[in-house]
Amino acid sequence: MSTPRRPPLPRIDERITMKYGAGGRAMRALIEGLFAQGFPATPGPDDVTLSALDDGAAVRVGDRWLVVTTDSHVVKPWVFPGGDIARLAVCGTVNDLAVMGATDPVGLTCAVVIEEGFARTDLEALHASLRAACEEAGTTVLTGDTKVMGRGELDGIVFNTCGIGWASRPVTDRGLRPGDVLMVSGTIGDHGMAIMAVRHKLALEGDLRSDVAPVNGLVRRALEAGGTAISAMKDPTRGGVAAVLHEMAQKSGVGVLIRESSLPVRPAVRAAAELVGLDPLVVANEGKVVLGVRPEAADAVLAALRAHPLGRDATTIGTATDDRIGSVVMDTGFGRRLVAEPEGELLPRIC
Amino acid sequence: MSTPRRPPLPRIDERITMKYGAGGRAMRALIEGLFAQGFPATPGPDDVTLSALDDGAAVRVGDRWLVVTTDSHVVKPWVFPGGDIARLAVCGTVNDLAVMGATDPVGLTCAVVIEEGFARTDLEALHASLRAACEEAGTTVLTGDTKVMGRGELDGIVFNTCGIGWASRPVTDRGLRPGDVLMVSGTIGDHGMAIMAVRHKLALEGDLRSDVAPVNGLVRRALEAGGTAISAMKDPTRGGVAAVLHEMAQKSGVGVLIRESSLPVRPAVRAAAELVGLDPLVVANEGKVVLGVRPEAADAVLAALRAHPLGRDATTIGTATDDRIGSVVMDTGFGRRLVAEPEGELLPRIC
Repeated sequence: MSTPRRPPLPRIDERITMKYGAGGRAMRALIEGLFAQGFPATPGPDDVTLSALDDGAAVRVGDRWLVVTTDSHVVKPWVFPGGDIARLAVCGTVNDLAVMGATDPVGLTCAVVIEEGFARTDLEALHASLRAACEEAGTTVLTGDTKVMGRGELDGIVFNTCGIGWASRPVTDRGLRPGDVLMVSGTIGDHGMAIMAVRHKLALEGDLRSDVAPVNGLVRRALEAGGTAISAMKDPTRGGVAAVLHEMAQKSGVGVLIRESSLPVRPAVRAAAELVGLDPLVVANEGKVVLGVRPEAADAVLAALRAHPLGRDATTIGTATDDRIGSVVMDTGFGRRLVAEPEGELLPRIC
Repeated sequence: MSTPRRPPLPRIDERITMKYGAGGRAMRALIEGLFAQGFPATPGPDDVTLSALDDGAAVRVGDRWLVVTTDSHVVKPWVFPGGDIARLAVCGTVNDLAVMGATDPVGLTCAVVIEEGFARTDLEALHASLRAACEEAGTTVLTGDTKVMGRGELDGIVFNTCGIGWASRPVTDRGLRPGDVLMVSGTIGDHGMAIMAVRHKLALEGDLRSDVAPVNGLVRRALEAGGTAISAMKDPTRGGVAAVLHEMAQKSGVGVLIRESSLPVRPAVRAAAELVGLDPLVVANEGKVVLGVRPEAADAVLAALRAHPLGRDATTIGTATDDRIGSVVMDTGFGRRLVAEPEGELLPRIC
């Protein structure tokens, strides 16, 4: 793989602050500068392991890849318009597998840490939601773990899910070439703004719903239509589409040029984002995919996405370029501006 | 598989209390009565999935099994004599894989949730410990996740690790037959009493150290010596050896008879346990294995265990019987008494 061109990362502060969990540069500094240091890669030369900092790992087994991914979920509140922490856990993990090319999960693990005093009825509701989300994604929970922390030692409940699945080839976030078409599978910013609205009791709250959904069926359609012409995929969670485009640009060694007018944003999301001074481009999504596609397959992939219920609003948003390597540039219609990589302090506990 | 004979489980309380995370009957009621309900099994008839409530899951792939396991770690304090939460996370997961028959992990996932304000230097120390434990176990971290919760929303740090590995056959905890010899790979109660001593500032603290260690090398030796004559394996963590023997007896449909005089307990552990009124049999271990072995292979397996540095104190502790099905009976030398299944409220946040 080509050496990615990446800007220098900030030093890690003496004390961990909220920005280190928020999906931006600070978190990347913590992971690249500390957590990913010193672990040997698995033997396969084509394996995707910790140092790749992708959505998960992919280890070659015979003529296919075993894909593994993990996420802890700490979303606050743990029930929100459009979903809850259990649905989020299933979808987050299924989606990480899918964007690595594993659209039919073998199954998930589910580990919960519960605060003492949590209501049984709430656990029952979360369990029902977990089951429903698994069914929707065509998967199951294989094994689990239960821990309890004392009252005041944990704010509510934390879910951790791991997923395993098989991919005929791992799709990374570093495969873009200049000329590749960039697409997003639907409207952006829905999840983050729904959480934000609930947490800050915004008046627009009623119109905002999380998009949390398993996209493995959608990605399956895209891969059937595009095959190896799909050069990069990532689900735009923490840090939003902006963070994903930065990852792809830096790791692939290309520039990214997007058109502001092409970004699909619901009116309620746009209004709420303006109210709190946020750009929907940096706001988390939980049922969307960003894809890079070779130009010759772009029409077929876009049509496949749009034919799926979760991809009706799919659209092209830009292209990979051979200038401004590692940068994301926005064409506003009036001119061009650099899109900053999110730093990460904006929306704690969004997922 | 035979239908296990299990006593009825208690109802789940309206509010979750500490006992639901402590590895005894209460936790089992929560898992069996709620969490494991309604998830479809994977297609393979020989697969071990959620309903088996084993150390992990095993899914058949060709002529071998993919073993998957997960654990969250919430131990308090997160550094303790003999180890820390990072070493515990690696060993807990490696050991769960090993007792399912997967002694050469493909790798681990590692997801951390950190409290705002956690010191960078402490994270660096935990990272070094994580690496060292992985090296000791001959494995690596494949992928990870980082979340931060606000100050006061989490007491310190939570680690979740998942492990994946291959087994030529899954070793379950339900394979005992009457006559099988029960062994433990070393002294019991060390981890739990070390944590207890630190938390309660017992005077004996200095003599107590956690046994936390990866037992995959030890289990590999045992499997090489015993093969399919090893009928059941489990690592005695929460609930201790007592909980493991109850699991094995109930799931295998046998009785278990153990000799009190044969239980290996360090003097410091015995003294501390007496001080706080605990039976070492219910206290957690993090570097031990309980094995059931067909009688004809017992000598060979015991010799193999003792030849390994982590198994020097391995010993037989009893046998599986065809009476008192589902029960654990202790021969005290003066008579026999039933060993109760731990309820679970004794030692919160032990791992």
